[in-house]
Amino acid sequence: MLKTPAYAAAHAHAPLVPFTIERREPGPHDVLIDILYCGVCHSDLHQARDEWGGAIFPMVPGHEIVGRVTRVGAKVTKLAVGDLAGVGCVVDSCRECDACRRDLEEFCEKGSALTYNSTEMDRKTPTYGGYSKRIVVAERFALKIPAGLDAAAAAPLLCAGITTYSPLRQYNCKQGDRVAVVGLGGLGHMAVKLAASMGAEVTLLSTSPSKEADARRLGAHAFAVTKDESTFTRLAGRFDLIIDTVSAPHDYNKYLGTLRIGGTMVLVGVPPEPAPVAAMSLIWGNKRLAGSAIGGMIETQEMLDYCAAHGIASDIELIPIQQIDAAYERLLANDVRYRFVIDMASLESAAT
Amino acid sequence: MLKTPAYAAAHAHAPLVPFTIERREPGPHDVLIDILYCGVCHSDLHQARDEWGGAIFPMVPGHEIVGRVTRVGAKVTKLAVGDLAGVGCVVDSCRECDACRRDLEEFCEKGSALTYNSTEMDRKTPTYGGYSKRIVVAERFALKIPAGLDAAAAAPLLCAGITTYSPLRQYNCKQGDRVAVVGLGGLGHMAVKLAASMGAEVTLLSTSPSKEADARRLGAHAFAVTKDESTFTRLAGRFDLIIDTVSAPHDYNKYLGTLRIGGTMVLVGVPPEPAPVAAMSLIWGNKRLAGSAIGGMIETQEMLDYCAAHGIASDIELIPIQQIDAAYERLLANDVRYRFVIDMASLESAAT
Repeated sequence: MLKTPAYAAAHAHAPLVPFTIERREPGPHDVLIDILYCGVCHSDLHQARDEWGGAIFPMVPGHEIVGRVTRVGAKVTKLAVGDLAGVGCVVDSCRECDACRRDLEEFCEKGSALTYNSTEMDRKTPTYGGYSKRIVVAERFALKIPAGLDAAAAAPLLCAGITTYSPLRQYNCKQGDRVAVVGLGGLGHMAVKLAASMGAEVTLLSTSPSKEADARRLGAHAFAVTKDESTFTRLAGRFDLIIDTVSAPHDYNKYLGTLRIGGTMVLVGVPPEPAPVAAMSLIWGNKRLAGSAIGGMIETQEMLDYCAAHGIASDIELIPIQQIDAAYERLLANDVRYRFVIDMASLESAAT
Repeated sequence: MLKTPAYAAAHAHAPLVPFTIERREPGPHDVLIDILYCGVCHSDLHQARDEWGGAIFPMVPGHEIVGRVTRVGAKVTKLAVGDLAGVGCVVDSCRECDACRRDLEEFCEKGSALTYNSTEMDRKTPTYGGYSKRIVVAERFALKIPAGLDAAAAAPLLCAGITTYSPLRQYNCKQGDRVAVVGLGGLGHMAVKLAASMGAEVTLLSTSPSKEADARRLGAHAFAVTKDESTFTRLAGRFDLIIDTVSAPHDYNKYLGTLRIGGTMVLVGVPPEPAPVAAMSLIWGNKRLAGSAIGGMIETQEMLDYCAAHGIASDIELIPIQQIDAAYERLLANDVRYRFVIDMASLESAAT
């Protein structure tokens, strides 16, 4: 086993502190990755504090991982020593069910092995995430970070990037489409960049007028404040597609009213409670309220290649791992533009 | 003007009684239709009793109209005297907006002229529906009833038929798909017939075990009772498409759980209140909750031609117009298999 420095929460009310985990020896299909950067997803905070229930402690969060391949198993073909590699939200799946055969490993019918706060497919061995110095993963679940992408700014693509790229592709975002992005956080800022790069006319919808300048800098062509009720009247019937990244309670029906005939609103944010939907909000105009979760490995690689080709990455604030608890507090206050990324070199210096 | 015997409600609490309306003289693009049959849609009852608000009285309901063309304007090309013709829910629209240009007249941006309880596009002249001896309509809004369709059993196709055909087409129902139909009423029985004719494996979901024999007779391959909670566990992840025809309150999340990855649940029934939808019900599995309303004129004609080619029509109970109030009471008690159709010959004998 490979003793590996990490940062872990011992229980739901504990701060993250140095902790040593063991990674398996790489098997013939595995790659060993020295982690350089790990993005800080809002879900890290929810899970480390057991806000979703069922948390497995000690917990090493982190599923936006970029690092350098330092060893590959004998049968690995996709990656070589020295490559920059990524690991996202999933580290294994059954590989045999309908979902896995359709390259939608995230929906594995047997339950995929999530990168942390989960178990390997043996349902016993706990998984530990990217707030650590290295990770061992089957090559199917490792991504190749293409040349040209900044390693640190690429890390959030593994979750925030694919979560917004996938619905834009599923609903065929293209030149001239009118796309609204609801909320300008980690997900929203990626949705704006990606939709604009696909040629869409992008409108950012936010509760906060202070987001306008940033929205436009990121590529939005228009901006509207959703606290102003006239916004919904003015934008009635306007959008082909809405990417809704907001996890605070809000009235879906109002947003559905801004869709064109046949338009789709895709939820990628998860409000705390179910929200009322009027059948007529959907029936009038043959509309759709959809959901979308990350993406499979093939689509995630496609997204990374797309981002490299289009010069797209996350706007990040690099932090040492010692600041992770402070970063969580700033996340709660929406005080980040737009993703914290941990510089894992900070963990090495702390551990030695 | 053409004096025309009809049946009308004088106000929300009045029974339907004989009434005389005037139809316009047919213009160059109009057809005059002698009405033979008119289906009784549940919405007739809601509107005649002003349960949706804003009702226009006196009201002559009926938007499932089949009759014989007895006169055509000089510029009419689609229909000829002697043809069997149909009129559905819409009798005019602006013909210029984006929706009209996309042959989705039902969503006309200026507001279409509905067949009754509405006005012509002048926004003044009230429209009167099919509980009457004849109707004058622009040929764009008249359908040709193909040879081989029974005139009385075809009438409900103009609303119940297109309302279920359109979502099956929008979501590409095809051979081998697993389709669930929720509710076995006027809409549900058409959805079962149509989905089965498209090669789908059809499951009827109903609160009532007594519907099973009929569901199977109509073409369903399976049946499940939704009052039994184990139904939702047993059918988890099963369906490509759900056509939900129920207008009573029910939990959409349970039904969304029975969709496969990427599956769609289409609402065509309108419950009285908005229903809570959990974002995770949609996100987990990239699912969609959609709505669909009737269909445009071209798709409605396509549906009629499809039904003729596949020997599909509504199961009906023919009634004289004098029994309309009793029929409404039976509708409220779900005591009809599966659509009342008024034999308009009964109105003639009453009026003479």
